[in-house]
Amino acid sequence: MLNLGQFFFEHVPMEGKITSNGNDPWAVFDSNASGGVSNNWAAQPEGTETGETSSSAWHSGHPQAYQGPGAEDDEWDEEWDDVKSSGGYAESEAGEGGAINRGGAHGSSMKIALNKFPGFSKSGPELYLLSKQPAKGTRLPVYGGEAGPVWAYPDYQLDCVVADPKKGTKMYGLKIDVVSCDPMFLQTTNKPVNHRYKHFDWLYERLLDKYGSAIPIPCLPDKQVTGRFEEEFIKMRMERLQGWMTRMCRHPVVSSSEVFQLFLSYKDEKDWKMGKRKAEKDETVGVMIFSTIEPEGLPDLDLIEVEQKCEQFNRFTRAMDDGVKDLLTIGNEHWKRCTGPLPKEYQRIGKAFQNLSSVFNSSGYEGEATLTDALTAAGKTYEDIAQMVAEQPKKDLHFLMETNNEYKGLLGCFPDTIGVHKAAIEKVKEADKLVATGKITTSEKITMSKRASTMSYALQAEMIHFHTNRIYDYNKVMQQYLEQQVKFYEMIAEKLRHAHSQFTTM
Amino acid sequence: MLNLGQFFFEHVPMEGKITSNGNDPWAVFDSNASGGVSNNWAAQPEGTETGETSSSAWHSGHPQAYQGPGAEDDEWDEEWDDVKSSGGYAESEAGEGGAINRGGAHGSSMKIALNKFPGFSKSGPELYLLSKQPAKGTRLPVYGGEAGPVWAYPDYQLDCVVADPKKGTKMYGLKIDVVSCDPMFLQTTNKPVNHRYKHFDWLYERLLDKYGSAIPIPCLPDKQVTGRFEEEFIKMRMERLQGWMTRMCRHPVVSSSEVFQLFLSYKDEKDWKMGKRKAEKDETVGVMIFSTIEPEGLPDLDLIEVEQKCEQFNRFTRAMDDGVKDLLTIGNEHWKRCTGPLPKEYQRIGKAFQNLSSVFNSSGYEGEATLTDALTAAGKTYEDIAQMVAEQPKKDLHFLMETNNEYKGLLGCFPDTIGVHKAAIEKVKEADKLVATGKITTSEKITMSKRASTMSYALQAEMIHFHTNRIYDYNKVMQQYLEQQVKFYEMIAEKLRHAHSQFTTM
Repeated sequence: MLNLGQFFFEHVPMEGKITSNGNDPWAVFDSNASGGVSNNWAAQPEGTETGETSSSAWHSGHPQAYQGPGAEDDEWDEEWDDVKSSGGYAESEAGEGGAINRGGAHGSSMKIALNKFPGFSKSGPELYLLSKQPAKGTRLPVYGGEAGPVWAYPDYQLDCVVADPKKGTKMYGLKIDVVSCDPMFLQTTNKPVNHRYKHFDWLYERLLDKYGSAIPIPCLPDKQVTGRFEEEFIKMRMERLQGWMTRMCRHPVVSSSEVFQLFLSYKDEKDWKMGKRKAEKDETVGVMIFSTIEPEGLPDLDLIEVEQKCEQFNRFTRAMDDGVKDLLTIGNEHWKRCTGPLPKEYQRIGKAFQNLSSVFNSSGYEGEATLTDALTAAGKTYEDIAQMVAEQPKKDLHFLMETNNEYKGLLGCFPDTIGVHKAAIEKVKEADKLVATGKITTSEKITMSKRASTMSYALQAEMIHFHTNRIYDYNKVMQQYLEQQVKFYEMIAEKLRHAHSQFTTM
Repeated sequence: MLNLGQFFFEHVPMEGKITSNGNDPWAVFDSNASGGVSNNWAAQPEGTETGETSSSAWHSGHPQAYQGPGAEDDEWDEEWDDVKSSGGYAESEAGEGGAINRGGAHGSSMKIALNKFPGFSKSGPELYLLSKQPAKGTRLPVYGGEAGPVWAYPDYQLDCVVADPKKGTKMYGLKIDVVSCDPMFLQTTNKPVNHRYKHFDWLYERLLDKYGSAIPIPCLPDKQVTGRFEEEFIKMRMERLQGWMTRMCRHPVVSSSEVFQLFLSYKDEKDWKMGKRKAEKDETVGVMIFSTIEPEGLPDLDLIEVEQKCEQFNRFTRAMDDGVKDLLTIGNEHWKRCTGPLPKEYQRIGKAFQNLSSVFNSSGYEGEATLTDALTAAGKTYEDIAQMVAEQPKKDLHFLMETNNEYKGLLGCFPDTIGVHKAAIEKVKEADKLVATGKITTSEKITMSKRASTMSYALQAEMIHFHTNRIYDYNKVMQQYLEQQVKFYEMIAEKLRHAHSQFTTM
C-alpha cells in the first residue's frame, strides 16, 4: 500500500492533562520540540464529565500493524488528486458491490450515494418515524445532564496526533501516525497506524452516511488551501487534518463507533477490506441512526417543545454562522494588512531613520556618533518591528482563523441536520391527517410522536456537545490569541525601549 | 492697539534646566498644566557653551508695558489675512518712508523690497567684498571653538513661551506672551508683551533683510495649516509660532540683535514706532552684515578652503533636505494609516468579538457567562486600542513631523544663503582678471580674498550652530518619539493582558 498516513492517538483521562503547545503553537510541526508533540484543539472539552461507557470499549480498535516512517515513500500529495477519480470508492464498489447507500435507500444509484445525506431523501424522516424494524447496532444512550440531555461520554477521551513524516526521513509529503493508548496500557498499545488520504475520505463518507442526520460531520480539509506558500500550505493541510481527527476523537458517539475504531486499528490490507465490507453493509445509517438512540430516564417531549428546541438551535447556529463568517472576513483583511502595507511602512520608517543617520554622518561635524549610532539603531529597530508585524499573524491570528474556519465547517452541517428534524416535525404534525385518511394507525401516530421526542433528545445532546466544545475552543483560542498579542506588543515595547536607551539624555 | 500677541521669554542658564513637557507634549496649550508652561523645542542646544557676550546685553530690551489678557478683544485670526494687504508694511511705508531695502539697493521699489533677499542682487556680494565704508552696527565676533569657528554665545539663552490667551479669558484666538527674565532678576523682569501678527511679520522681514545672507531665517508659520480640524489648526499654528520664536531666541546673533530686542521689549505704540523707524534705517543689511563679522584670532583662509567648506555645507544641507522630506512623506502616510484604516480595522475586530459574544449569549446554554463576558471585554479592548492607535500620532509622530517640518523650512533657506557665498567665491576667482583689466587694485584683490575668508568663517560658525541645534533637536525628538512609542505599546500590552486575564484557565 502506498502513501500511508500515520497518526497517534491516546486515551486522555477526562480531567487529566491538557495537551496544548502553550508558547509555541507551531511546535506541532517540529518533532524535536521538547514537551512532546501535541495539537491545539485536542484537549478535553469543558463540562463533558458525564462519562458512562467503559474505556474498555476503545481497546478493541488498537492498531497492531505499525509501519514505520520510510516504509512507504510515495508522495502523499499524489493522493490528494485521485480521490474523486478512482481511488476513493472504486475499490469498494468494484470489490464489494458499492453498498454505500442503505437505511431506506437500498439499491439506489451511485449518484444518490454521493449526495450529502445518502441515507435519506426529502421524505426521509418517516423511514425512521414509521419503521417497524428492530434497532440494529450499538445503542446510543442519552442521559439527563445538568445542562440538558447529554451523550454518553467515555471516561477517557481519544487524542490524536497527525505527524509530519518529513523530519528525519527522506520522504516528502505527509504521514499520519495513530497511536491508541490507555495510559495504563501505554507500553503495549501506543502504536501508530498509517492511512492514505482515500482512507480518510472513506471514513468521512461512512461517518456522514451513518451519523449525518444527527451529528454534524465536518468535511475533510480542502485539498487546496489557497494563498499560501508551498511549505505553509503543507503545514496548514496537515494542521487541518489534525483538527478534523481531533474533533472526531472528541465526539463520544463518533469516536466509539465501530467504523472509527476500524480506522484507528488498521493492521493490514486484508483486515481493512474485511472491516470495510462490514461497515459498508451497515444498515443503521441515515435517519435510522435515531433508532439506536435511547433516552435514559427522560420523559417524552411534546411536539411544541421539540419544535421550540429545533427552532432555537436553528436560530443559534445561523447567528453563529454569520458571526463566524464576519470574523473570518475581518481577520482575512487584518491578515493582509499585517503582512502587506503595515510592515512595508515600518520598514520605510526604519530606512528613513537610517538614511537620516547616514546624512548626519556626512556632516563633517565631530562628536555626533552617539546620535547617528542611536538613529541607525532606531531605524533597524523599526525594520525588526516590520518583520515582527509581518510574522505575528502566524502566531496568533492564524489560530483564531483556523478555529473559526473549523466552526464555519461545522456550522455548515447544521442546516441539513436541522432540516431532518424539521421534516420529522412536519411529518408528526401531519399525523392526525394521516390517521384520518387511514394511512397510519393511532398507535403509529403515538410512535411517531415518541420518536420525534427521541430525535429531539439526540439533537439536544448534540447541541450540548457542540456548546461545551465551542465554549472550550473559543475560550482556548481567545486566550492563546491574547497571550500572543500581549507578547507581541511587549516585545515591540522592549525593542523600542532599547532603541530609546541609546540616545543620550541631555 | 488690537489683537496683540503676548509671549514670555526668559534667560535660561546655558547648562541649566531643560524646559520640556515630558509626558504631556500638549501641556503647552494648557495653562493649568502643573510644572509651568513651556515648549518642546525651547531647551538649550548641545555644545553651545562658548558664551562671550554678557547677559546684561539682554536687559535693555525687557518689556515694560504688559497688557494683560482681555485688554484686547479682537480676533487674532483676523490679523492672519490682512498682512499682505495693508497691515504689514503700509504702516511703516506710509509713516516712515518704506525704508526696507537698503545696503546696496537704496531707493529700490516695493517690488524688490518683497524679494526673498532684499539686500542684494545676483551681483550683490561685491558690495561687501569691495566696500570702502567702515563697518556700522554691532560687531559679530567669530571665535575658534573645538569643533570649528563659532558665534559668540551668551551665558544665558532666551526662552520664549507663546501662550494661548483663550484660557481664562473671553477672547477667542491667540495671544502671545513674552517675558524676559534673568533668573537673578526674576521678580522685576518677568513681564509679558503683546504682539499682533503683523509685528511678527515685520520682525521676520527685518531679520531676513539684515541676516538672511549669513543666517537661515525660516519663514513664519503658514497662515493656513491644511488637513486639520479647527481646534487642532489653531493649536498647530501657535505651536509653530512657538517653534519659530524659540529658534530665533536660540540664535546668538539673532537673539542679541537690536531689532529682536526691540520686539521683545515692546512697551507702547510710540516706543515701538520709534524703534521701527530706527531698525528700518539700518544700513547694515544684506551682504553688508559680513562687514560686522570679526574673526577673532583666526587665520585668513585661502579660497580653496573657502570653496571646499561651502561645497561641503551645500552637499550636506541638500542631502539632509532630501532625508527630511523623505521622512515627512513617510510620516504623512503613516499618520494617515494610523488615523484611518488601522483603527477602523481594530474597531471591526472589537465589534466582531462583541457580536460573537452576543450570539453566544443567545445559545440558551447555561454557564458560559465567563466566556461571553470575557469576549465582550476583549472586544471592547480592541475598540479601546482602535482609539489609542488613532490618537497616538498626536503624541509622538506629530513632534517628529513638526521638527522635520521646521528643519525643512530651515534647510530651504540654505540654497540662497549658500548662493551668496558661492557668488562671492566666483567674484574672488575673477579678481586677477579684474586687476588685469584695471577694474580693481591689487590691494582691493587682497581685501576681497580676506573678506571671502571672513564670509566663510561666518558660514562655518552658522553651520556649527546648525549642527549643534540639529543634534540637540533630533536627539530630543527621537527620544520623545521612542518614549511615547514605548508607552503606547506597553499600554496596549497592559490592556490586552487585562483582557486575557478575564478568560478562565482550563
